Amino acid sequence: MLKRYLLAPGPTPVPSEALLAMAMPIIHHRSPDFLPVLDAAKNGLKWLYQTKNDVLIICSTGTGGMVGSVNNFFSPGDKALVINAGNFGERWTKICKAYNLYVEEIKIDWGYAVKPEDVEKALKKDPSIKGVFVQASETSTGVYHDIKTLASIVKKCKNTIFVVDAISALVAHDLKMDEWGIDVLIGGSQKGLMLPPGLAFVGVSEKAWKFAEKSTSPKFYFNFKKERESLAKNQTNFTSPVTLIIGLNECIKILQKEGLENAFKRHETLAHATREAVKAIGLEMFTKESPSNSVTAVNAPKGLDGQEIYKNLRVKYGITAAGGQGQAKGKIFRIAHLGYADTFDVITAIAGVEMTLKGMGHPVKLGAGVAVAEELLLK
Amino acid sequence: MLKRYLLAPGPTPVPSEALLAMAMPIIHHRSPDFLPVLDAAKNGLKWLYQTKNDVLIICSTGTGGMVGSVNNFFSPGDKALVINAGNFGERWTKICKAYNLYVEEIKIDWGYAVKPEDVEKALKKDPSIKGVFVQASETSTGVYHDIKTLASIVKKCKNTIFVVDAISALVAHDLKMDEWGIDVLIGGSQKGLMLPPGLAFVGVSEKAWKFAEKSTSPKFYFNFKKERESLAKNQTNFTSPVTLIIGLNECIKILQKEGLENAFKRHETLAHATREAVKAIGLEMFTKESPSNSVTAVNAPKGLDGQEIYKNLRVKYGITAAGGQGQAKGKIFRIAHLGYADTFDVITAIAGVEMTLKGMGHPVKLGAGVAVAEELLLK
Repeated sequence: MLKRYLLAPGPTPVPSEALLAMAMPIIHHRSPDFLPVLDAAKNGLKWLYQTKNDVLIICSTGTGGMVGSVNNFFSPGDKALVINAGNFGERWTKICKAYNLYVEEIKIDWGYAVKPEDVEKALKKDPSIKGVFVQASETSTGVYHDIKTLASIVKKCKNTIFVVDAISALVAHDLKMDEWGIDVLIGGSQKGLMLPPGLAFVGVSEKAWKFAEKSTSPKFYFNFKKERESLAKNQTNFTSPVTLIIGLNECIKILQKEGLENAFKRHETLAHATREAVKAIGLEMFTKESPSNSVTAVNAPKGLDGQEIYKNLRVKYGITAAGGQGQAKGKIFRIAHLGYADTFDVITAIAGVEMTLKGMGHPVKLGAGVAVAEELLLK
Repeated sequence: MLKRYLLAPGPTPVPSEALLAMAMPIIHHRSPDFLPVLDAAKNGLKWLYQTKNDVLIICSTGTGGMVGSVNNFFSPGDKALVINAGNFGERWTKICKAYNLYVEEIKIDWGYAVKPEDVEKALKKDPSIKGVFVQASETSTGVYHDIKTLASIVKKCKNTIFVVDAISALVAHDLKMDEWGIDVLIGGSQKGLMLPPGLAFVGVSEKAWKFAEKSTSPKFYFNFKKERESLAKNQTNFTSPVTLIIGLNECIKILQKEGLENAFKRHETLAHATREAVKAIGLEMFTKESPSNSVTAVNAPKGLDGQEIYKNLRVKYGITAAGGQGQAKGKIFRIAHLGYADTFDVITAIAGVEMTLKGMGHPVKLGAGVAVAEELLLK
């Protein structure tokens, strides 16, 4: 028997409360049974997003939310400023280009965060930029971008909106949508929200809704105005993914019991403990600055392949973490502390890494990282 | 206690085998654990689609599969011939127009099926038509279009492909994709396949893949070429909806045990019994010809509102059937016999209708419809 542990940056483990609620007999999305379900989801998402506006619920992966945030607020030829600091920054560029936007990139070395002043400069230089696109947490590098400062910069430009992919940051980082002035905030189900994949969430500011009025990009499946109208009637535009929304309500209940501030604090604490423990093992962070609360990216020790560490963790110890993506493939491995995660998930991850490296012939003082994690996670 | 019965044309009830499999701890879509899961799904879908080609699996509602079938095979300005015989035919027109195709419609009175010779004439008149779009089962009217004959007509035109929305027909009707020459065949999870909403399926012929080479429509989330490449590696392009795919394999197992021919026969038998029973109650079919095996559309008796019948069924008897859509709203009600449906679902529906109509003051001989259904469902 090999007991399994899921410590990847999405999908993350789903609490039994949600799994069992989703295993209940299905209900019909256009029947009155569903109205209170969607009503609860709407209220829960507003709470989670710290916004007074409805948060759209889309039946797609998180990427669908990103695509919808391009084709609903922009038109061919519009100028986009993309902060490209990793694999998912690159995705913004690809989506914008697929919809014929003109893309200017602020390209950042992997492992580093954007300097807000560079965004400010770019916007001053070219006031025709219609949208600034960024990740809150860049999953491929484990970097958190300073969303609060970036929002305050874009807020000053009345012809520009700030579009944030928070798919892997939601629940793990405090993102005050209304207070900070984030215009479009995208989440996904299978990350901090502790659900299976299948839902994207999109919060939209009044400023962004005005942009939507002018968009000429083709839209049918991702049609945010129609989703907004449907949501006002406690429906979704097309067939609602009823089971996932029922699960969403269960997970939001769990988070509401914990409290939003406590959830952020939990992720911060787990992330900090993971980083310090990793360093105590003698490993080096791949993330050079502003580490994310969602995932920790670690350099493979010299002479070892990051993918092999990932594989050994999985095959020998039943731990599904993550390897590297794109240019970081082979060079790093990543450990998530996201969603339904607590103290002993970090302990498991660190012990697993210690034992795996030892098994691969790397000199490791067993227990050194775990001792540091224990120290930092003492209650 | 009001026991609940779901007899709507999607979502349909989900068998416990699938519900429980989906409630198992989640696995990671890029880990080797998932490869055999997707492999099984691929093989199962080929079997179900009666095709040798891979069937794409998309994380969206069925409509996402329709949208992808427009933006992946066609370009702005291309000519589309849409068979518009109801609410979902209308949807084809809207999607084609959203992607700037030029749309010609064969408009058919609700309740009737397309005459294949009209399609033949239209194609002869205008050989520049690139795609013919139709529903196999038009859910809003309960009509089945003659897909076999239509396929044989379009097959002769080498510059035209045949795109079939089989979202509510799959499993209920025999659709021999390869043998008949259907180029694009779209399914959804929450209908005959007995799953929760969240998956679209798209079968694609070699002829259609050639069309995809020339398409210039914007595509990112619905990018069929990339999905095909991913599927060859037992992956999906974006995060896989792992739980739904695990459920899919359970439902396909159930269907394989039954046998495809038996599944078609079961739906045909249930549909026939429902229609004859409805007539025995003294009601009139809304569907004037070529009734679908998936859903039966019935005219509300004179003086009664179809929506009220739907409401009474639900509130008094716990039966969620369906009302009318679009121009049929208020005039009809609909009973599905789709997916996880058998003898006593029909009996329940018919008894429920008898009792509901009686309760609404309509003269009904209680048991008259049920007697006919019993007769036709005797084993």
